[in-house]
Amino acid sequence: MSADTDELVVIGGGIGGLTTGLAAVRSGRRVRVLERSAQFGEVGAGIQLAPNATRILQELGLLDEIREVGVLPRRIVLGDAMRGGELGALDLTDFVERYGAPYIVMHRSDLLDILLRACQRAGVALETGADVTSLMDDGAGVDVMCTDGRTFRGTAAVAADGLHSRTRALFSDDEAIGSGYVAYRGAVPMDQVSRHADLRDVVAWVGPGLHLVQYPLRSGRFYNQVAVFRSQAFARGEPDWGNPAEMDERFAQCCEHVRESTPLLGRDNRWPMYDRAPIPTWVKGRIGLLGDAAHPMLQYLAQGACQAIEDAWTLGAALRRHEGATGDGVEAALLAYQAVRVPRTARVQHTARTWGEIWHVDGVGRLLRDEVLRRRAADDHAHVEWLYGRGTDGADAVLSA
Amino acid sequence: MSADTDELVVIGGGIGGLTTGLAAVRSGRRVRVLERSAQFGEVGAGIQLAPNATRILQELGLLDEIREVGVLPRRIVLGDAMRGGELGALDLTDFVERYGAPYIVMHRSDLLDILLRACQRAGVALETGADVTSLMDDGAGVDVMCTDGRTFRGTAAVAADGLHSRTRALFSDDEAIGSGYVAYRGAVPMDQVSRHADLRDVVAWVGPGLHLVQYPLRSGRFYNQVAVFRSQAFARGEPDWGNPAEMDERFAQCCEHVRESTPLLGRDNRWPMYDRAPIPTWVKGRIGLLGDAAHPMLQYLAQGACQAIEDAWTLGAALRRHEGATGDGVEAALLAYQAVRVPRTARVQHTARTWGEIWHVDGVGRLLRDEVLRRRAADDHAHVEWLYGRGTDGADAVLSA
Repeated sequence: MSADTDELVVIGGGIGGLTTGLAAVRSGRRVRVLERSAQFGEVGAGIQLAPNATRILQELGLLDEIREVGVLPRRIVLGDAMRGGELGALDLTDFVERYGAPYIVMHRSDLLDILLRACQRAGVALETGADVTSLMDDGAGVDVMCTDGRTFRGTAAVAADGLHSRTRALFSDDEAIGSGYVAYRGAVPMDQVSRHADLRDVVAWVGPGLHLVQYPLRSGRFYNQVAVFRSQAFARGEPDWGNPAEMDERFAQCCEHVRESTPLLGRDNRWPMYDRAPIPTWVKGRIGLLGDAAHPMLQYLAQGACQAIEDAWTLGAALRRHEGATGDGVEAALLAYQAVRVPRTARVQHTARTWGEIWHVDGVGRLLRDEVLRRRAADDHAHVEWLYGRGTDGADAVLSA
Repeated sequence: MSADTDELVVIGGGIGGLTTGLAAVRSGRRVRVLERSAQFGEVGAGIQLAPNATRILQELGLLDEIREVGVLPRRIVLGDAMRGGELGALDLTDFVERYGAPYIVMHRSDLLDILLRACQRAGVALETGADVTSLMDDGAGVDVMCTDGRTFRGTAAVAADGLHSRTRALFSDDEAIGSGYVAYRGAVPMDQVSRHADLRDVVAWVGPGLHLVQYPLRSGRFYNQVAVFRSQAFARGEPDWGNPAEMDERFAQCCEHVRESTPLLGRDNRWPMYDRAPIPTWVKGRIGLLGDAAHPMLQYLAQGACQAIEDAWTLGAALRRHEGATGDGVEAALLAYQAVRVPRTARVQHTARTWGEIWHVDGVGRLLRDEVLRRRAADDHAHVEWLYGRGTDGADAVLSA
């Protein structure tokens, strides 16, 4: 291995990429993270971190910083977007005791900042403006070539380059699947907010073909909202589908609370919602996928970032298991990572779609959903145990293999 | 009132008409029941009598006879028509204690025979071949004219002439609503049956767009089956929709038990399933509707006959309340009957439709239904209290009015 060879090159400096950098450095690897943009950072508003992710961030020594800027909600509530009122709730107050770490909501950019500073402290090499065009695995390492002529070489390369990952083409020719839903977002100072839900809760107001999520950020100084709806114009094949006028029309049918909350949403940006179907293979030789590049999912379980964090942690564990190994050892680590992460994330992808259908169901399905929620106590955690429970991320499995 | 004037003429000699004859005679009325066919009797197979009906049949002194020829099932079970296995159940064993009378399944013709004999014993006048063409309310009574030239005169007339009631045209110009579902039936001697569910249960095997109901009849000497499916050919507008070949194709996708049960169904007759929307008025002067003529419903709650029996009983109570009254008294009795029966039967009609949708739901609604059923204990009767509970038929309300 030459002095110029990193042990791991990570393509993509989002939540998944930076966490992978941190987790791999902890395993004693020399790691470099490449970000396409001129600087690290992220557009976006709020992010939800469930205990399956906060447990890992705690292990990475970041939880105190995160708690300082985040909010620990009391409950996740499903509200009836049409009639108002609560349909059901999940109690979060005993999550530290129950799952070893709290449920936290925070600003995405705050999390990015914390991860970036931690990478800098830990000695992760960081490159910006590194727009990767191709990868070449020659059996001894991977050359990662950028548009500006730079080439980075690693013993292995992991692509955490998001929903529209270029690296994914090595594994699948699938296309991102448009759901016909579009999101509008807004995180605004609390003093601009005239209408909010209980500030101790994360609330998802759900109705046929639409929903509105609301929760506080930054110690309650900001209020985060996401409005999502199924576009009729998309179904009709119109190019300007999901525009603000269509949003206004759809949300006009909602209960007063939801109706009067939507004016705070930013109207200049819209996010069409995509996912992909699970694929069985993310690893070939010394190259692997991670995060949305591997398993982009709909947002209904709020697990996109959480699963990327789980990926990073499990990959770190796999590298630790094969510590000191080069060549085949790195390949074995990637395969061990893939073996536990593929089924886990496929389940999350499937369940996120189903959960979205449950949120948006109409007709008799809506009656049945409301009945299920009415009968489920807030302290009944059976349905989230597989997702939030300890030892579900697969890191233990690869360490004990 | 002339010697030729009955106090009540009932048009239609089915379950509703005969029970009305009996209930009205108990109120001391002179009653005549007109049947269009050459003899009283009914095609058809099994019938389910819930306690809201058997309580009334008990009051009419018929329950011992009914128990002799009927079967008292232990449970109503919903099975998964596609995967097999139970989705949920309702315990019926404490219904006498809980609701004052048992749940009974029996042959429709056995019930007709019992009602007919009871009418004969009680002195109800019975006419066959009486095909009614028109009614004339002259303010003092109603002339009921038949195709063969006979005219019967009553102080009042009640039409229990079924789904395709001619009399209903006095109240509504609505048409029967085809659901696109079709039923095939069969009640065969038990020794021909190679495949049956637990003989102590009424079992409805439910799946997307289809179901199969199975239960024993005549002390377990016969086995009754009804297979129902949503016809794709109906949706395509084909005239021969819902034919046996289509049934075979649909049920070929079911679990082994359901698949192997369907060959016993009679293939020569099919019953397209209809209902109508509730209407607010069934009574005009001295003329009223009753049973399916007033509120035809889908069969999913097995309440068609039960609601006709409730109608009859409540009308009897209303006539008793206005005992000795003629003229306006009869009109008041009919109005009192209408006032309590219209909302009750509208709820049953609506709920029957919804229950059918629940049986046949697919996709995420099916997941939710299965979850609701899994969580509902067999001894949880909260959802049937409004239907089976004492005092729900409205007779008490008209008596105490």
